[in-house]
Amino acid sequence: MKRYAKQDFPVGNTRRHLEPGPIVLVSSAWKGETNIMTMGWHMMLGFSPALFGCYIWDANHSYELLRRSKECVINVPEVHLLDRVIGIGNSRGGDLDKFAEFGLTAEPAEKVSAPLIRECYANFECRLHDAKLIRTYGIFVWEVVKAHVAKSPRKPRTVHYRGEAEFMVAGEAVKRPKLFKPANL
Amino acid sequence: MKRYAKQDFPVGNTRRHLEPGPIVLVSSAWKGETNIMTMGWHMMLGFSPALFGCYIWDANHSYELLRRSKECVINVPEVHLLDRVIGIGNSRGGDLDKFAEFGLTAEPAEKVSAPLIRECYANFECRLHDAKLIRTYGIFVWEVVKAHVAKSPRKPRTVHYRGEAEFMVAGEAVKRPKLFKPANL
Repeated sequence: MKRYAKQDFPVGNTRRHLEPGPIVLVSSAWKGETNIMTMGWHMMLGFSPALFGCYIWDANHSYELLRRSKECVINVPEVHLLDRVIGIGNSRGGDLDKFAEFGLTAEPAEKVSAPLIRECYANFECRLHDAKLIRTYGIFVWEVVKAHVAKSPRKPRTVHYRGEAEFMVAGEAVKRPKLFKPANL
Repeated sequence: MKRYAKQDFPVGNTRRHLEPGPIVLVSSAWKGETNIMTMGWHMMLGFSPALFGCYIWDANHSYELLRRSKECVINVPEVHLLDRVIGIGNSRGGDLDKFAEFGLTAEPAEKVSAPLIRECYANFECRLHDAKLIRTYGIFVWEVVKAHVAKSPRKPRTVHYRGEAEFMVAGEAVKRPKLFKPANL
């Protein structure tokens, strides 16, 4: 299993890893129970504070853990974890310890009770910023309060879901600094 | 300029093209004015109806056009359009005709007044489904009412923004049908 050396990452730059739209693993903890869910319906909502919104169906076991604990960690896996990511998405929490079942390591976070997943490329510790859209829209609005990102690679091979069991893997990077106004970078 | 032959695409499968998180061009029309904006903060919110949410800052010229017309088209560009996509994101609507300025072709949509952008790989015609989150959260909730997608390539080379003028280009595809429960595909 690939091991990453991680470092603190500025939360104001969270968009670098979440705006491209990767599949993420959401870890949660509540009253001694932990869970992990696979999630692809999310978007950035602000830079400062670093806000991030996601849609979670209330039938997911994690829904109540997230709603009650008001905390989570958004973990970004690379493609070598794909089979585990799918396995987590196709299993149900509650009776199953997904960390043990899928050979993942729970590490303590700094600012939240939900655990980091060590094997993921990046971990974003989040506190619930706004609960008002949960019941009606299924939208959780999180503030990223602490971020940990692997020192290398700089350009992770994230996975992006297309439905029907097909994923797109992050490809090459292109930069165009001269085409941007400085204020828009 | 690359030309696509497009066909109708089932709106219930919109997630195939939007869930992976590409940068999109949002076209709008209101009282004879059209505009295009570049947008990366969006997520799927439902399959049936096909719901799609996006965050739009109220300082964008498109904000009022979208809010008043209650319609838009979400256009998905491939990487060969990248310089235009950036140019649109770094210019301001109002005085500028972005179709003319950036050499793009406005085509009539079927169900909305906002134009399709011919040079894009896919076009999703949308009607505003819910206006209640616009003022407070900047979130527009759209229903996709008609979709047009190029017949080829099957796997478009979309662009995904990382900030600081850097984009990730969609890479290889991987499929894992045997790992999914049928109901979860």
